[in-house]
Amino acid sequence: MSQTAIALMSGGLDSTTAIAVAQHEHDISVKAGITILYGQKHHREVRAAEEVADFYGFTHYVIDLTSLGCIIRRSSALLNPDEPLPHDRALSEMTARVPRSYVPGRNTIMLALAQSIAETYDLETIVTGFNAVDFSGYPDTRPIFVDAWNHLARYSTKRGYQDNKPILCLAPIINSSKASVVAIGREFKVPFHLTWSCYEGGPNACGRCDSCRIRLDAFKENNMEDPIEYA
Amino acid sequence: MSQTAIALMSGGLDSTTAIAVAQHEHDISVKAGITILYGQKHHREVRAAEEVADFYGFTHYVIDLTSLGCIIRRSSALLNPDEPLPHDRALSEMTARVPRSYVPGRNTIMLALAQSIAETYDLETIVTGFNAVDFSGYPDTRPIFVDAWNHLARYSTKRGYQDNKPILCLAPIINSSKASVVAIGREFKVPFHLTWSCYEGGPNACGRCDSCRIRLDAFKENNMEDPIEYA
Repeated sequence: MSQTAIALMSGGLDSTTAIAVAQHEHDISVKAGITILYGQKHHREVRAAEEVADFYGFTHYVIDLTSLGCIIRRSSALLNPDEPLPHDRALSEMTARVPRSYVPGRNTIMLALAQSIAETYDLETIVTGFNAVDFSGYPDTRPIFVDAWNHLARYSTKRGYQDNKPILCLAPIINSSKASVVAIGREFKVPFHLTWSCYEGGPNACGRCDSCRIRLDAFKENNMEDPIEYA
Repeated sequence: MSQTAIALMSGGLDSTTAIAVAQHEHDISVKAGITILYGQKHHREVRAAEEVADFYGFTHYVIDLTSLGCIIRRSSALLNPDEPLPHDRALSEMTARVPRSYVPGRNTIMLALAQSIAETYDLETIVTGFNAVDFSGYPDTRPIFVDAWNHLARYSTKRGYQDNKPILCLAPIINSSKASVVAIGREFKVPFHLTWSCYEGGPNACGRCDSCRIRLDAFKENNMEDPIEYA
């Protein structure tokens, strides 16, 4: 019998493809998705996540964490209106240290919220699009982070502690390059046209922020055209 | 030089006494407190936490997570208006299994939010009133949970991963009985009159829910009168 899951959804390529991989290769039935509104400039991603959830036919929860976003605003270029996001960087420049688009402890927060909903609705797994290859400066997308989370999960819930059924995190594309993610997504007919990656808040993707550049490069490597509109 | 900290605050005896112990015995300077509004019936505790923060003279952050509270409402008698909290139970009845006042994964969420604020403001530690003695049915107040969190903390933030300075969780009263907590609090002149423990939403403490009964018993064991008003 297939396991049930909740998926962390950013509306982007990775989290959407992870859902497809979980369903096709891990016999997981995704029953719900969760997206966090934390004051990100690109809250357009919430609509993308909603449309992806509709496409796959599961419930989409939006958690309002803007009160946290106000408190930690200075911490990240994704949040701070006075700090521009880096533009037009070469891919090789993006991997060295933790980039300014890092939001302190965000992935731990998202897992913790998903865990709470999962325990409430008897969902067994959290599917994530964590990826340690591109943007490899982020601390909280690495296999060692996922392993540490899965250790914590044994003690953090009633389900984990009393019933020995921890709500584990699955990161099925954690070691895939962005080009591989696009290739895998194509194989599983992922609705790329609904996804959103741009960090800027514009009506169309900017094509110049780190996230857009990595995305465009990945489609190019697959000799595919990215189906979304660019400014 | 003393370490700086953010404290998880429920406005109750444990979290307030933990702050005093951290300051007096662990050379920790608490710079901020955080309280979560998650739809608990006893949101009166938010005001208590605010008053305690004022007493000690640090910043108090309230994070609004009512959107989560709505989603997980069915999971806990602390949230669900249709489910009464247990009343008039003997202390011995409270320790067997995970009680209905358990909120799924709540302490992981609170630590994750505190970690994010701590990293933003360069605070080094999270002070908690986690206690594994009374209400020992809860999974996420035990030493093994704290240890697992502290392992995760090495990988979950930039500070932990890149700078090898994880934001660790300190739980200075985790092995103290509630009577000991009151004794310790008296020694450190904790403002018991500002604290709030009752799970019900009334203007005065009910004196009959599990939390009130444990509290009253602890004062009694110390031959002290609880300075707050009861219905």
